[in-house]
Amino acid sequence: MSCKYTALLQSVLLATLRRPPTPRPRACGAARRTSFSRCSSLRAGSSSAAGRVLPSPRVSHGRFTLRTHSCGELRTAHLGEEVTLCGWVQYVRQDLFVILRDFSGLTQILIPQDESRLVLKKTLCDLPLESVIMVRGKVRRRPEGQENKAILTGEIEVHANNVEVLNICQKLPFEIKDFVKKSEGLRMQYRYLDLRSSQMQYNLRLRSRLVMKMREYLCNLHGFVDVETPTLFKRTPGGAKEFVVPSGEPGRFYSLPQSPQQFKQLLMVAGIDRYFQLARCYRDEGSKPDRQPEFTQVDIEMSFTDQAGIRDLVEGLLQYSWPEEKGFVSPPFPVMTYEEAMRDYGVDKPDTRFEMKLVDISGAFHNTQIQFLREALHQPGGSIQAICVPQGAVSSTHMHFSFSHLPSDNFGPCVCVLRTEGRVRPLLGRLRLQCADLLEGHSVKVRDPSAFHFLWVVDFPLFLPKEDSPEQLESAHHPFTAPVPEDAHLLYSQPHKVRGQHYDLVLNGSEIGGGSIRIHSASEQRHVLDTVLQEDPSLLSHLLEALDSGAPPHGGIALGLDRLLAIIVGASSIRDVIAFPKSFRGHDLMSHAPDFVSEEDLRPYHIKVTWPEGFCPCNS
Amino acid sequence: MSCKYTALLQSVLLATLRRPPTPRPRACGAARRTSFSRCSSLRAGSSSAAGRVLPSPRVSHGRFTLRTHSCGELRTAHLGEEVTLCGWVQYVRQDLFVILRDFSGLTQILIPQDESRLVLKKTLCDLPLESVIMVRGKVRRRPEGQENKAILTGEIEVHANNVEVLNICQKLPFEIKDFVKKSEGLRMQYRYLDLRSSQMQYNLRLRSRLVMKMREYLCNLHGFVDVETPTLFKRTPGGAKEFVVPSGEPGRFYSLPQSPQQFKQLLMVAGIDRYFQLARCYRDEGSKPDRQPEFTQVDIEMSFTDQAGIRDLVEGLLQYSWPEEKGFVSPPFPVMTYEEAMRDYGVDKPDTRFEMKLVDISGAFHNTQIQFLREALHQPGGSIQAICVPQGAVSSTHMHFSFSHLPSDNFGPCVCVLRTEGRVRPLLGRLRLQCADLLEGHSVKVRDPSAFHFLWVVDFPLFLPKEDSPEQLESAHHPFTAPVPEDAHLLYSQPHKVRGQHYDLVLNGSEIGGGSIRIHSASEQRHVLDTVLQEDPSLLSHLLEALDSGAPPHGGIALGLDRLLAIIVGASSIRDVIAFPKSFRGHDLMSHAPDFVSEEDLRPYHIKVTWPEGFCPCNS
Repeated sequence: MSCKYTALLQSVLLATLRRPPTPRPRACGAARRTSFSRCSSLRAGSSSAAGRVLPSPRVSHGRFTLRTHSCGELRTAHLGEEVTLCGWVQYVRQDLFVILRDFSGLTQILIPQDESRLVLKKTLCDLPLESVIMVRGKVRRRPEGQENKAILTGEIEVHANNVEVLNICQKLPFEIKDFVKKSEGLRMQYRYLDLRSSQMQYNLRLRSRLVMKMREYLCNLHGFVDVETPTLFKRTPGGAKEFVVPSGEPGRFYSLPQSPQQFKQLLMVAGIDRYFQLARCYRDEGSKPDRQPEFTQVDIEMSFTDQAGIRDLVEGLLQYSWPEEKGFVSPPFPVMTYEEAMRDYGVDKPDTRFEMKLVDISGAFHNTQIQFLREALHQPGGSIQAICVPQGAVSSTHMHFSFSHLPSDNFGPCVCVLRTEGRVRPLLGRLRLQCADLLEGHSVKVRDPSAFHFLWVVDFPLFLPKEDSPEQLESAHHPFTAPVPEDAHLLYSQPHKVRGQHYDLVLNGSEIGGGSIRIHSASEQRHVLDTVLQEDPSLLSHLLEALDSGAPPHGGIALGLDRLLAIIVGASSIRDVIAFPKSFRGHDLMSHAPDFVSEEDLRPYHIKVTWPEGFCPCNS
Repeated sequence: MSCKYTALLQSVLLATLRRPPTPRPRACGAARRTSFSRCSSLRAGSSSAAGRVLPSPRVSHGRFTLRTHSCGELRTAHLGEEVTLCGWVQYVRQDLFVILRDFSGLTQILIPQDESRLVLKKTLCDLPLESVIMVRGKVRRRPEGQENKAILTGEIEVHANNVEVLNICQKLPFEIKDFVKKSEGLRMQYRYLDLRSSQMQYNLRLRSRLVMKMREYLCNLHGFVDVETPTLFKRTPGGAKEFVVPSGEPGRFYSLPQSPQQFKQLLMVAGIDRYFQLARCYRDEGSKPDRQPEFTQVDIEMSFTDQAGIRDLVEGLLQYSWPEEKGFVSPPFPVMTYEEAMRDYGVDKPDTRFEMKLVDISGAFHNTQIQFLREALHQPGGSIQAICVPQGAVSSTHMHFSFSHLPSDNFGPCVCVLRTEGRVRPLLGRLRLQCADLLEGHSVKVRDPSAFHFLWVVDFPLFLPKEDSPEQLESAHHPFTAPVPEDAHLLYSQPHKVRGQHYDLVLNGSEIGGGSIRIHSASEQRHVLDTVLQEDPSLLSHLLEALDSGAPPHGGIALGLDRLLAIIVGASSIRDVIAFPKSFRGHDLMSHAPDFVSEEDLRPYHIKVTWPEGFCPCNS
């Protein structure tokens, strides 16, 4: 949609806003409890370390190390104890205190003030921030009135007897303070410093915690087997987005797969019964925003199951592994058909945190005298649709509607005639989201950022017309998806009408997972490849042979771990939940990968660079 | 060593063997308890399914699926219950019974014999083996005298009311019976069938179980953070064995790293404090036997630690995660210096399950009149060494020695003069292992296959002379290893004398892990790269900068998961603990990876194949 119409819409919307509306988020997935900043600072033990989470008290952070405790764990219960702490100099205060930091929090260290240790005092007071020291000393209660209630160690301090400087910080490109804002480029170049921020520490530790809970659920509670599958594989038919890896044999290449799809199906044929893997996957998408060339999916497959079985499993998985500070997940999640989603939200991954559904108002114009509306309604599939925007109504019975009129190809602005549903609904779907953005841009709360709304979308078409040759069909998802049983007979007569047993898991308007019940009959699979898709089945002969040798019915799902985590922590980019992400252009700005490789190093792989004309590597 | 001498040795050894000696394995690592085959069949619930392990009874195998129970779980406690089982037809007996199999075991299904269900009976009796069926029926006690004590479900059978054929097995390249031996090539080509064997099911499930326990130990008990690091990285200096991955930019390549070494050190600089990852690593070693182009390591790094800390951590890790049916691991593991290992075993990864140490017998020949022995002893570093072979002595005080005399360059067989220890000890070390093989080949027990002997080897030299230019030094392991503190000053004067803080973990004569305390001072690291190794430090500028910005002292280890598992399950190749391994030549015999890629598909990567002269892809 062009800027002009967005601006117009904005003025229409703002004119109709008389008072700020009250948000009324629905609790259909995980209900909100506390906002991120509040609960994280409660757990952090330090106001300056918002987002930091203390690990389980079962863990001893002293074990295996030179320290006895971590910097976040000392309390009045430790008074009088001799302790050893290791950490980074966060700051020095009044030449009296060193504030020592590690992943778990801050401790105030009292610098010895006696004459005999002036050298030590001078060393400490002169230390550059972020230097690494080890402190031995006794835990004391802070003098009355000097407690710091904002941090969990605020009632104590450590009187240093001995300090060892482990490493002096020689230079820093930016200050390691949460309130110092860094550019994205600088953050990526010095990622090892960026990761010291409390938000990034929280994100990476949450990721580890979430994944561990997922494994417990799958492996310990439900008998899933964690199987690693190869990443040096073979190019799949049509796998244009797969990276190639030259082998030592002339002309032969491995391929880095986009998912372990074939392997997990083969594992079902192998009788593994329940498989999962946190699988590294690869996709060469050039410079698509917020995509990474390598990403991680929670890959699951199960034998003798059906759609309800997979949904039940995944709902339980999310419920079990959901971080407690982020509210709770309450299955079952709502299920919506693809058709309903497109009808009501104009998109197959609706954000159900807010209403503003697409409404068919053709009825109201049934007897209209307005010429172009009449004409539009008389066209095949013609309709008039609108989005309803709540205007601060306290209850749903007081909703006011504001019809937003979109331009058609033929008619001017402020007027919207929707001739074919298929083309216009996606447009209105995008408009709906832009409305929400606009309203929120003007401080109208539409979506609760602490709410998590899960939704299953089912009954997708199995095949779609190819974009470049619409008379041919291509798989809507992939060629291994089984048809909905009621539609299976149509596979041989009217394949375009077949719905697939595919399901998407949507969270707050993002697709965070997708899967299907697979075809387990070799003849059906051969028919789909051969007759419907007109692909060469010999490229998948190993899979077809496997289906012929006693393949159980099976199905599975893949959850996009990076995207899921980004939504959970409220990050605007998946880069914020990945330790060492690539830039927009696929570069590692820290190490400068990808890099030039000498001709000699390429020789064993029997490849040679074909330099574009006029291209000079030195300028690139 | 040539065959001639091996044969000679064999005859000498056999001639001295008067009666079969009793093996006396030392328990220094995990003590043996029961042999693999015994304990696995005890747990398997089926003699024909030796090696199968029933998962935790907490797990419900019915949930999320069409079945109510798995095929291995029904007992007399279930008598009278209506159950649904899914599985593979293992065999049909007397037209009366179908034996149904899944991952957990076997259940006997009684085929309905009544007239009204003759069609069903015929279907079942005609079903090809390995077809997949679903059976509904009632659990009954087997008639007296017909129980099968060899399987855990042997007291019951299921009287089928209803059977649904889910998939008919159309063809099998070999029988799915544990006693049917298949060639390695056939096993790899039809890996999905090979994995149905009880041994491979056991291996993969054990792998999953072991890894899960490792994660529990690291993550839940000791606060380690599971961080994923990139596999699309940059070629490391001298990384000749790294696969390259062309990017979309002309001439620029990613590299698949051999380990996450740099990233894990950067994570320590980032304050992650305790990191671990089950890391996929890559090494292009062409056709080395029993190596895989991709493999998995348990990658660990910790801040503020020392060698003892890491050893303690890893010993606890193995103790916690060790499969209970494989005995127990009892830390601490013995520690041996590199020098001791070379002196006593002629190798830096000694198999300490048996004695037969290298013995210096120079003293016995001190006054010898034999000319060549005298001459040899008078050379610098000259000595005479032998291996002592136990000959069935009941106690160690009754050991008999048999001197094996090895040929030197100058002297004939049966005689062994060892002139320089450095050159000859590795030869004797190999001979020691060949002795053990020979003895075992003649049914003399030397090594207990159920014993697990762990050993730490420490104090390796930090640098070694380069093979092709011995006046230059190269890292014995990698350039990030810190020197032993007592030797640190020698780094600047006599680097060849410096011992490194490297440690190897050895199990039964195989190196299963290695690690070190790292250099955390940028200036020391720069000196090592620059002055000692004469490498360009700018290639590692990001690491050097990181060390300068507050790097804590840190160290870590990487355990080779595949090799560890192969030893635990007693597999002769790591291929037996990997779901879809590559062949000796790096091929996937099932899918035919690596495969040819069209010129067009290579164009976006700006590379072109350089075909060797006369090479024809069609013949390769």
